[in-house]
Amino acid sequence: MEIAQVLHMNKGDDETSYAKNSTVQSKIISVGKPVMEEAILGILCTHIPESVGIADLGCSSGPNALRVILEILDIINTKCQDLGCQSPEFRVSLNDLPWNDFNSIFRLLPTLYHKIKEEKGGRFGPCFISAMPGSFYGRLFPSRSLHFVHSSSSLHWLSQAPPSLNWNHRMPMNKGKIYISKTSPSSVLEAYSQQFQKDFSLFLKSRSEELVPGGCMVLSFMGRRSTDPTTDESCYQWELLARALMSMVSEGLVKEEKVDSFDAPYYAPCAEELKLEVEKEGSFNIGRLEAFEIDWDGGSDDKQAALQSRGRKVAKTIRAVVESMLEFHFGGDIMDELFKRYGELVDDYCLRTQPSTSIWSFPCLERTTKWVSLGD
Amino acid sequence: MEIAQVLHMNKGDDETSYAKNSTVQSKIISVGKPVMEEAILGILCTHIPESVGIADLGCSSGPNALRVILEILDIINTKCQDLGCQSPEFRVSLNDLPWNDFNSIFRLLPTLYHKIKEEKGGRFGPCFISAMPGSFYGRLFPSRSLHFVHSSSSLHWLSQAPPSLNWNHRMPMNKGKIYISKTSPSSVLEAYSQQFQKDFSLFLKSRSEELVPGGCMVLSFMGRRSTDPTTDESCYQWELLARALMSMVSEGLVKEEKVDSFDAPYYAPCAEELKLEVEKEGSFNIGRLEAFEIDWDGGSDDKQAALQSRGRKVAKTIRAVVESMLEFHFGGDIMDELFKRYGELVDDYCLRTQPSTSIWSFPCLERTTKWVSLGD
Repeated sequence: MEIAQVLHMNKGDDETSYAKNSTVQSKIISVGKPVMEEAILGILCTHIPESVGIADLGCSSGPNALRVILEILDIINTKCQDLGCQSPEFRVSLNDLPWNDFNSIFRLLPTLYHKIKEEKGGRFGPCFISAMPGSFYGRLFPSRSLHFVHSSSSLHWLSQAPPSLNWNHRMPMNKGKIYISKTSPSSVLEAYSQQFQKDFSLFLKSRSEELVPGGCMVLSFMGRRSTDPTTDESCYQWELLARALMSMVSEGLVKEEKVDSFDAPYYAPCAEELKLEVEKEGSFNIGRLEAFEIDWDGGSDDKQAALQSRGRKVAKTIRAVVESMLEFHFGGDIMDELFKRYGELVDDYCLRTQPSTSIWSFPCLERTTKWVSLGD
Repeated sequence: MEIAQVLHMNKGDDETSYAKNSTVQSKIISVGKPVMEEAILGILCTHIPESVGIADLGCSSGPNALRVILEILDIINTKCQDLGCQSPEFRVSLNDLPWNDFNSIFRLLPTLYHKIKEEKGGRFGPCFISAMPGSFYGRLFPSRSLHFVHSSSSLHWLSQAPPSLNWNHRMPMNKGKIYISKTSPSSVLEAYSQQFQKDFSLFLKSRSEELVPGGCMVLSFMGRRSTDPTTDESCYQWELLARALMSMVSEGLVKEEKVDSFDAPYYAPCAEELKLEVEKEGSFNIGRLEAFEIDWDGGSDDKQAALQSRGRKVAKTIRAVVESMLEFHFGGDIMDELFKRYGELVDDYCLRTQPSTSIWSFPCLERTTKWVSLGD
């Protein structure tokens, strides 16, 4: 399974689209805003560069895609106004995998530019918004071209499921599961942890070459508080999805081998793992590292959502994100039934453990001014 | 009519798609290659920059979209190998209007990167290919960020049809026509010429700020040899399209007002007009200015095409380019019939005036090292 081709948020704007089911991700952006603001003001405290490079990694599509960018531009513009100095030239890059729906973002740009001009007037910018398709587990941007990197709700996706999990199809290592589970053997935990280490260190190395010294990154992704990766807060959403799949296996609707051979390309790291990788890579200081609990349904309070069961809301949120990947592996026919069952399992779980939350990690990583590595 | 929303090549890969009907544009790229090669080698003759900025304006989608980029990279790479020096970092920008199908280009990028790596090995690059949606009649890129700008088969599109043509709907200036015609009053010729001057000078000014001193542009677009804009070579493709529309008017299939109120946002300038604008703007020298005659059907010799009538081939080529715009104005229902009639008129015309060709202009414009204007 080539992640670049099968991992993308649900397109369009119908009932199952990401555009209509991204309240959680929107909530994450709101929660992360103060961290982002502090980080950006930190970069600008010594001087305002003539040209500022900004990247949003894993921008996706839908209403969230341009929101962060607007907020970043606002923060910098306000700072310039406070200092009475000229606004810099903004070079903004939107990044996601090549199968992301960039077309839909581009069609919002003329309105966005118009809005920026109306609101901020002639003293702002110029602002150039481009797209850079590709995996952030590797180089994306020219050397030392960025001042600020943002990535929200993306880095919990690995570059691939750990390949060692599936080397022997007749002896599945993680039977009946699709991610780390309480019953998973330690080899599964180890395989996931290693894949995370490999990916995250490549992420750090790539960004270290792209950021200017003194530049910084504010990231947000699903994590866990405990060092134990089998706790509910770390893996229970996948656990319930595996149960929904296995209930369909028991009725002959899904083949058991299909479940056994699927491993989510996902990892929710704890703070210690993060710190270790940052230290090992050596180009960044951790400026701030916070964790927040976020409701599985984002604590959404819009009217339409209030009429639905919690399980249904969570199922729609998760479906908009993982459907492309599951569809590729299991086929599209079972999706409605799968997410119906999943929603019911979530409802049942929520009744027992109110409220059901995930842990989100918000590290701010500052590019050290000392240049550690410059190789490719 | 907002050009940005209605001018895009036909999407997808069916019978009427641009991907399947872009032989002429491909031919233009081939014809322009020696001009491009000379221009790029000219830039590299004094030194090879560490990081080279390249932009393709009006890249469209389909098989042509990445072809030029690959050719440019090849030229630079070969030069580096000849000199025995390290390949630079490539910053490549693909530009087109926001309604262009960028998604389909992005999906080709993983294969392209793989191919580059296989063919050119580790000594090449790194190469970063991004997309910059927006109109090239205005700023697109950061100041002094580009070394080479290419634009093929795009600059004959104006930013808009001349607004003065349509100020009085009860007294259409260009009755029964959709572009300059032998019967057009001089006010129509004047309106088109002025719109061209306004657009082309804005194009030059914008690029002059984005190109580094010594950088250059190779452009190709439809033009004309004669200073008279009403000659067949300049406007006969539109003339026949107007006749096809008027034949439908006479049968009540299209309303006459619809034809009267449509003006193609297009202009085929002659060399004198080009030179005048370049001199007036002042940031560029014309390094080379060539014109080529290209068959209306691109002189295609592929087998499938050979089985079709010439008119049908030309109709498919033109349809893939202008349908989005005509559909917006006339409605989609008449398109099949319109292009059937158009093909017949082309066949008829070709029988009388074999071969039917257009004039394509290939200027190479060098950014003067003297900085003339730096304002926004």
